[in-house]
Amino acid sequence: MSEPQADTRQAEPRISLAQLRQFITVAMTRLGLPEADAATVGRLMAEAELQGSDGHGVIRLLPYARRIRAGGLNLRPNIRVVQERPGMALLDGDNGMGHLVMERAAQIAIEKARVCGIGWVGSQFSNHAGPASLYARMPMAHDMIGLYFAVGNANHLPPWGGLDMLLSTNPIAVAVPAGDEPPVVLDMATTVAAYGKVKAKAQRGEMMPEGWMIDRTGAPLLDPKRAEEGFLMPIGGYKGYGLSLIVGLLAGTLNGAAMGRQVIDFNHDDTSVTNTGQAIMAIDLSAWGDVAAFKARVDTLVRELRASERMPGVERIWLPGEQSHAKRAANERDGMALPPALLKQLDAFAQELGMPTLQAT
Amino acid sequence: MSEPQADTRQAEPRISLAQLRQFITVAMTRLGLPEADAATVGRLMAEAELQGSDGHGVIRLLPYARRIRAGGLNLRPNIRVVQERPGMALLDGDNGMGHLVMERAAQIAIEKARVCGIGWVGSQFSNHAGPASLYARMPMAHDMIGLYFAVGNANHLPPWGGLDMLLSTNPIAVAVPAGDEPPVVLDMATTVAAYGKVKAKAQRGEMMPEGWMIDRTGAPLLDPKRAEEGFLMPIGGYKGYGLSLIVGLLAGTLNGAAMGRQVIDFNHDDTSVTNTGQAIMAIDLSAWGDVAAFKARVDTLVRELRASERMPGVERIWLPGEQSHAKRAANERDGMALPPALLKQLDAFAQELGMPTLQAT
Repeated sequence: MSEPQADTRQAEPRISLAQLRQFITVAMTRLGLPEADAATVGRLMAEAELQGSDGHGVIRLLPYARRIRAGGLNLRPNIRVVQERPGMALLDGDNGMGHLVMERAAQIAIEKARVCGIGWVGSQFSNHAGPASLYARMPMAHDMIGLYFAVGNANHLPPWGGLDMLLSTNPIAVAVPAGDEPPVVLDMATTVAAYGKVKAKAQRGEMMPEGWMIDRTGAPLLDPKRAEEGFLMPIGGYKGYGLSLIVGLLAGTLNGAAMGRQVIDFNHDDTSVTNTGQAIMAIDLSAWGDVAAFKARVDTLVRELRASERMPGVERIWLPGEQSHAKRAANERDGMALPPALLKQLDAFAQELGMPTLQAT
Repeated sequence: MSEPQADTRQAEPRISLAQLRQFITVAMTRLGLPEADAATVGRLMAEAELQGSDGHGVIRLLPYARRIRAGGLNLRPNIRVVQERPGMALLDGDNGMGHLVMERAAQIAIEKARVCGIGWVGSQFSNHAGPASLYARMPMAHDMIGLYFAVGNANHLPPWGGLDMLLSTNPIAVAVPAGDEPPVVLDMATTVAAYGKVKAKAQRGEMMPEGWMIDRTGAPLLDPKRAEEGFLMPIGGYKGYGLSLIVGLLAGTLNGAAMGRQVIDFNHDDTSVTNTGQAIMAIDLSAWGDVAAFKARVDTLVRELRASERMPGVERIWLPGEQSHAKRAANERDGMALPPALLKQLDAFAQELGMPTLQAT
């Protein structure tokens, strides 16, 4: 769920989904991933960009490449189930790309939910996998609700009242299928802003709004280029601290994955094994009763909320995921407008890899 | 998780846990509950008081009695499973006391988690059941993590940007067992402040801090005497709106329970069936590996967070549930200090029911 904001990239050149998928896939192959794995990563990273998760889309290609070249990612991982019960599994990602681990995790969770009504799959020795909603959305195609929790790949906030950065933005995503309405998809960091959004602001040369970050003296930090001098603010103060910790316990500590001091800052360390922990849950709607009746109830609720009387100056009431849904449709139709600075980086990277550049139209 | 605050009730007369449990049990019997059910409600309401959830403890006895006498609660409910899979069940509470429904739900979730690794039980036609953490804590005795979600029994906030109160404070509770450390127990409404805190400010003639409530123009509402003119603020703005909605979808809509416009304001309506929805989940630690090793990891994390360097003026770093844990221990040792006004009400109520009053010592 993103803050209502105007799309300022209308006039920029457009890249189609197929082009972006192909570009990332070829780059990943050149970087040494097996073809099938490169295609999976390309598909998921392009889909992240498509749905407007620009902090977790193709902007991540260069950092991933840096880590791959430094030997910090296993290009031939043996991703395997190390613990299992009828309703759960624990996956060892063997330090492979997080996208590969979490797509597998989602598949297993869906299979288990089909039998048990619910399925939960955790990961250890995984890596950054892109936007949380990418995986929470997967069960929806099977008439299931999806939930996703992850430990972020760098600590950006201290415990409430503290100064040591021991917690990350630890996101939560939940995707609920509707009938005629778009699905309700919440995708939120437990901080006021996700660190990916800070990076995106820096990339665009923009200042951050007050409330996203503070420095160690407690003063607002507005320049995203100074982000390392401060920390992100949790939502609702001590409540967001509690949520971040709980997500970390469920996605990290439970799985034997990194949490607290063990979390590697993957912005500054390309070689250490991150031991990233994530968890995905699938809830099979048919176990609760008639699926169409459930979806009709969601539609009714969505319409009630949207039809609420509005505050002065508010043009419309948004449901979580509704803007992303619209962006996805527009991007599928018109192609995606990447920021010029990012396009330039990607062009240089393509030349370096000896592969075709992205051809915007 | 409550805000750090001093215990101002030291000098007041004390009631033991056994006394309070007995008092509520007898009252519930006089009100017409079968003896075993009255004992369950007495035990759970007294435990809510013991852990410091005073807004959900014995203060609820009179409102419950009012609803029972008005015929708004079924005293002989046929609480039964209406949908089931190996990892889930849907309970029809038959409009019985929520405590009875949710204790049964917790038991079933624990049994299912023992087999499947995880267990999820939802409710429909349930009622208010006390503090969320009361049920999230139950799986811990079986070396399980507990999660609890509920639809609140009155709508206090509109969708983000809206004016129609269609959402409740829909709480989330998660309880994670530790080893030598107290368990980590998060219990939070998805609003910045609970409505009870607003009422307390009004009684003391104090202003509310900015951020608790807004008026119908979106401006901060600071005078608690004007609370009826505004709304509670969700945590993190649109994020808290999203969280409240998601909790409502999981605990209400999924179960065919009330959500949105269907939610009855149980402060002003004693007779309509509330069709309250809740959900509890149990996660069996042994499915993930060695339980003692998990608890040791939680201990390590808790100590890292507590040992963080602190901001100026901060005396200590609290973990979620740590203050409630301390209060529980102190109340078990010293007895509970009920506010004199509440004691007076309970005395009058006991006389009305022709039963012994609470004897404070």
